[in-house]
Amino acid sequence: MTAAAFRVDPQGSLTDVTGIAVGHYQRTGGGWRTGTTAVIARSGATAGVDVRGAGPGTRETDLLRPENLVQQVHGICLTGGSAYGLAAADGMMHWLESRSIGFPVGPLAHQIVPIVPAAVIFDLGRGGDYTHRPDIEFGRRAATRARTSAEANGSVGAGTGAVAGGLQGGVGSASTTLSNGIVVSALAVVNAAGSLVNPASGMPWESSAHQLRRPTTDERSALAAATSSPSLPATGVLNTTIGVVATTAQLSKAECTKVAGVAHDGMARAIRPVHSMFDGDTVFALATGIHVLSESQASGLRAEGSRAALLNLILDAAAQCFAAACTQAIVSARSLGGPLAYRDLCSSAFAPTPRRSAT
Amino acid sequence: MTAAAFRVDPQGSLTDVTGIAVGHYQRTGGGWRTGTTAVIARSGATAGVDVRGAGPGTRETDLLRPENLVQQVHGICLTGGSAYGLAAADGMMHWLESRSIGFPVGPLAHQIVPIVPAAVIFDLGRGGDYTHRPDIEFGRRAATRARTSAEANGSVGAGTGAVAGGLQGGVGSASTTLSNGIVVSALAVVNAAGSLVNPASGMPWESSAHQLRRPTTDERSALAAATSSPSLPATGVLNTTIGVVATTAQLSKAECTKVAGVAHDGMARAIRPVHSMFDGDTVFALATGIHVLSESQASGLRAEGSRAALLNLILDAAAQCFAAACTQAIVSARSLGGPLAYRDLCSSAFAPTPRRSAT
Repeated sequence: MTAAAFRVDPQGSLTDVTGIAVGHYQRTGGGWRTGTTAVIARSGATAGVDVRGAGPGTRETDLLRPENLVQQVHGICLTGGSAYGLAAADGMMHWLESRSIGFPVGPLAHQIVPIVPAAVIFDLGRGGDYTHRPDIEFGRRAATRARTSAEANGSVGAGTGAVAGGLQGGVGSASTTLSNGIVVSALAVVNAAGSLVNPASGMPWESSAHQLRRPTTDERSALAAATSSPSLPATGVLNTTIGVVATTAQLSKAECTKVAGVAHDGMARAIRPVHSMFDGDTVFALATGIHVLSESQASGLRAEGSRAALLNLILDAAAQCFAAACTQAIVSARSLGGPLAYRDLCSSAFAPTPRRSAT
Repeated sequence: MTAAAFRVDPQGSLTDVTGIAVGHYQRTGGGWRTGTTAVIARSGATAGVDVRGAGPGTRETDLLRPENLVQQVHGICLTGGSAYGLAAADGMMHWLESRSIGFPVGPLAHQIVPIVPAAVIFDLGRGGDYTHRPDIEFGRRAATRARTSAEANGSVGAGTGAVAGGLQGGVGSASTTLSNGIVVSALAVVNAAGSLVNPASGMPWESSAHQLRRPTTDERSALAAATSSPSLPATGVLNTTIGVVATTAQLSKAECTKVAGVAHDGMARAIRPVHSMFDGDTVFALATGIHVLSESQASGLRAEGSRAALLNLILDAAAQCFAAACTQAIVSARSLGGPLAYRDLCSSAFAPTPRRSAT
């Protein structure tokens, strides 16, 4: 584990895993600033979840426990609207049902139930009207817009109403390809009470995959002022970072659960503090099963190419991709009339000339 | 959550929480390089645990589930010896029994069962003899040595046989006092497959609490050579980081479980990668109950001083203390004839003059 066998691409997309499509739908203005992100797996994907925030809003997560019946999901709904926003998953289910995609529950083709676990972020009232939140139509529209090409990042979809450490939050993604050809990708919706930016440097805590320059002293001061506004109480703000990690590997539900768990390590590195009593931090893992892993697990740890050793690489990649996706969310976010965005405050971080010496 | 309300002391000790004592016993030479660390709570402590590594070796962790009967533990056994080393907990139990400390199971004073959860690290054979591992006597001696004064750090107790990212591992601790007087402390036994040192800088990933200087270019080269030795396969090495977080706050078992979980965020920041299939990473949390928290939890998130808001501070402190304790383990470790220690390779990091500009 001394040298990483892969390099994380912060421009990568969740859809770099074949079989995964992503669509965003959002509304802004007129009291709105919220949205929904639909992750679609038309051919199904084995799934797991790990909920590590203490204030989660989820559905269909019990189904994902390894011992339970259903093995594959057909989509993941990530949405604003707190628990009200769970309704967006209904829209995704209807969209999938109309395409005959779902878990068969009877002998006839239309007797299916699409499996769409969901998790929400808290963004109620951020657009001005507390009652303007995603509903069934948001889920349907986000699913309709789902594409297998690279998805948009920044203040879109479920990240539209997101706030992260006092800055505009958003959606970010990243991906990597392991030397054995397995692809791992991540999409994060970052709406954190904690901060993604190291106040000492003005740079994201996790920026090793990103080509960022150190902001100027003036920019760091502006950043400090924006992120310590008295409108941001030290406690009492509901927040949540949610997301999906996907891989082309063929994993079991239990292995997907482990991947989702270790992806939270990336969240812990990128966001400080995290997993608080007021965060509902939740990560789903999807495995499309294109790449079959070695089954040589009976020999304990002696086999270099054992299944566990291969899974370790996927775990490390999941953590690194999720961290990079969180950072990508904050650096690609743009202000929508609410909090300022990182790029508004630290534009010199994005100067085209590369940094001379990276730390 | 913008400004930390506390500062972590990397010289702090787990015993900074009143009521907690720590003792180390180890053997080196003659085929030995292993040991046991006894954490003793003579008056009992409410406890929780979170196991996030995929190869754990533990005992009495089911008892710690919030729904189960026993509320308080009397000690935690951290030990080398892989699953064989779990025998050391027997020695701690006997020591406690002889002092009439335990969970009452009958009407008579001697009818008690001391509650001593345990977790192990893998260090089999590191001293040369695969059969030389902690047994009941190690636990008894470690308990006998337990003191409420600051415990020793470095290559002692359960950290004696530890290896971390190719360097000598060990035991580290840290503590902090919140503005409300609540003390949070951590002790980590670092035996990780992942590395605690950022190869780009030669400094620990988490060094903000430590007064370290940047190693020289020559030192970084030596570090890179030592940590990428061909004797360290990228996979197939069993490792584990285990530890204890303690607080003076009065917490429930469920709250202790949450504290233990968030302490793993500190582990994720300090050790990369972590929580792998070959790590048994386990953190216990102990609450001695000296400081009673506000009970104003019925008002959701409106109350600034709600119990959840206070718990959030403890969670953040637990993560930061555990990260600092991991770093303290690697910087205070000294080679015992096995792998080199960080301070052997990067002595200029410990030069007395402070760094001019910290990042």
